[in-house]
Amino acid sequence: DRTYRIAVIPGDGIGTEVMPEGVRALQAAADVYGFELDLVELDWASAGHWQAHGTMMPEDWAERLETVDAIFFGAVGWPDVVPDHVSLWGSILQFRRVFDQYVNLRPVKLLQGVRSPLAGREPGEVDFYVVRENTEGEYSSVGGRMFEGTDRETVIQETIMTRTGIDRVLRYAFDLAERRPAKKVTSATKSNGIAITMPYWDERVAAMSESYPDIDVDQFHIDILAANFVLHPDWFDVVVASNLFGDILSDLGPACVGTIGIAPSANINPEGTHPSLFEPVHGSAPDIAGKGIANPIGQIWSAALMLDHLGEAEAAAAVEDAFESVVAAGDTTVVTPDLGGTGTTAGLGSAIVDAI
Amino acid sequence: DRTYRIAVIPGDGIGTEVMPEGVRALQAAADVYGFELDLVELDWASAGHWQAHGTMMPEDWAERLETVDAIFFGAVGWPDVVPDHVSLWGSILQFRRVFDQYVNLRPVKLLQGVRSPLAGREPGEVDFYVVRENTEGEYSSVGGRMFEGTDRETVIQETIMTRTGIDRVLRYAFDLAERRPAKKVTSATKSNGIAITMPYWDERVAAMSESYPDIDVDQFHIDILAANFVLHPDWFDVVVASNLFGDILSDLGPACVGTIGIAPSANINPEGTHPSLFEPVHGSAPDIAGKGIANPIGQIWSAALMLDHLGEAEAAAAVEDAFESVVAAGDTTVVTPDLGGTGTTAGLGSAIVDAI
Ligand SMILES: CC(C)[C@H](C(=O)O)[C@@H](O)C(=O)O
Ligand SMILES: CC(C)[C@H](C(=O)O)[C@@H](O)C(=O)O
Repeated sequence: DRTYRIAVIPGDGIGTEVMPEGVRALQAAADVYGFELDLVELDWASAGHWQAHGTMMPEDWAERLETVDAIFFGAVGWPDVVPDHVSLWGSILQFRRVFDQYVNLRPVKLLQGVRSPLAGREPGEVDFYVVRENTEGEYSSVGGRMFEGTDRETVIQETIMTRTGIDRVLRYAFDLAERRPAKKVTSATKSNGIAITMPYWDERVAAMSESYPDIDVDQFHIDILAANFVLHPDWFDVVVASNLFGDILSDLGPACVGTIGIAPSANINPEGTHPSLFEPVHGSAPDIAGKGIANPIGQIWSAALMLDHLGEAEAAAAVEDAFESVVAAGDTTVVTPDLGGTGTTAGLGSAIVDAI
Repeated sequence: DRTYRIAVIPGDGIGTEVMPEGVRALQAAADVYGFELDLVELDWASAGHWQAHGTMMPEDWAERLETVDAIFFGAVGWPDVVPDHVSLWGSILQFRRVFDQYVNLRPVKLLQGVRSPLAGREPGEVDFYVVRENTEGEYSSVGGRMFEGTDRETVIQETIMTRTGIDRVLRYAFDLAERRPAKKVTSATKSNGIAITMPYWDERVAAMSESYPDIDVDQFHIDILAANFVLHPDWFDVVVASNLFGDILSDLGPACVGTIGIAPSANINPEGTHPSLFEPVHGSAPDIAGKGIANPIGQIWSAALMLDHLGEAEAAAAVEDAFESVVAAGDTTVVTPDLGGTGTTAGLGSAIVDAI
């Protein structure tokens, strides 16, 4: 049965503007490739929900979503109404942890028609994935303050890494590398400075690499790795990183290829015990919200990642080809201002839907 | 009395090749600007010292260095003989902590004659400082392992920030911004994910900014800040960051302007209770060591920072002008291979000494 039940959560700001285009692209792919969508639209993770209920999501959110095949997410955050750390820890960070979406997968790809800030780089030259640990590590709420309010004030926060947590994301990265031509994994570390958790990370990478003799493994400290994203983005194939380092690298990578406004991300529970979640990397962008000019490609590219995850690889490829060809064509009346055009969210969405 | 007693510690690898050029530049500046140098050459922080004594430095290193006016350092690290975390925690990280060099200052400057990997950026457009906290935060050795060797293995490391530690580096950054035309401080944070220490960092930034009403303050989460180093390097004036974030940004910044091989750094104890240390950002570079082609500018630029710190501002400016003009002239028989030339370490050093 090829009917997919998908929770659709636009969130706030431009999330609500790009989501309709994401849904249209999905629907077009369903029509062409002959599967069915059962969409469940939810107003969660929005300032509206916060104002009405004092929470970002209903208490029984997890039970209600356990049965969907995937979650299609827009963007969360409307700081005028609810502080960011409240809205984020009350929605997206909850999904990642409670649904054990322990892989955050983010493609970095230099596309025809997108201007890279790097000099002299050609489309095709840069095409890699950042695989980010998504549930533990530096993102913790364990710790506290002592001598509060005095000159001796001391604040401690624990980074917590587990063998289970590290090994499973490494395995995902190595498996992904197996399916790529370069068969190469790069590990982000900082074991020369972060003296306890990062040497452990390195040990687990070394152990895992023994089970994958055909995969080429290297590692860089995060400082020089960030530098190498700028200097040698063509060196990378699959980059695996802790939660914090992955967060940094998966914004930096798209920035280097000019796709920060259109990059997608997949928050994956590989075992399928819980639903996975697909969202653009961009946020709710209060500054351009309401103008109808947000670029919907991040949402549409996320739809492609979701289709691939659902087993609709052909449809996924078609959606990717569609937006890539529209961007490559570069019709300035179609593409949105961020790509140098005068197009609208809906107009660019339509062009991509037509191409599908 | 303008006699400066300087500890000269070349270290390992290209450290031993670039240091003589750094010393020659210092000496030339002394001759022209009429001060004296009393140089104390030490073989510490080297593989040789490790092999002879089993330590990176003698036990009484701190007492012996307390009386110098500054430490001029090359590069540490020779992993064939001693593992990096041992050599680093046994030398450079010791200096920073024991001598309370709580500011790590690193200029990011796009120079005439240096090719930036970023498209369309002009010299003068990018010129800012990264001010990094250099003694606490994420670089800690507090923590440990539990359930060792089992599937439940859990590793914990504490990030420790103090009001004293944060406030003093912020004060340095704000004071520096006061002396710059843009009068702007950018804080690197990640309070939306790192939920205990980074909100505290933000609070201290907000508190400090109240004492500096004429300084413009903004903040970015580290992920988008890294992206903005690539996209908008012209936005920044003084960027202040924790130990880890500062480490990343002070490699990324120089990478964006093409100076990663020649960037300098100052490890400063602003009160002068202990000596400060000046070193190039680059490491010992085993891959090119022994060839005589290492670029000495990182060492020479560090000499300029040291002279400025010692109160010889005119001499410092002269050293900076000297290497900037030699690089701008771009004679390919003079500049080293990293800058596209065929010059040698000594040849480029001589050209700069002549210009001083
Ligand atoms: C070698 C390493 C421990 C060091 C650091 O991370 O501080 C280096 O990267 C630096 O920036 O000086
Ligand atoms: C909003 C924030 C908590 C989040 C993160 O750091 O994980 C975002 O930057 C991301 O990368 O999805």
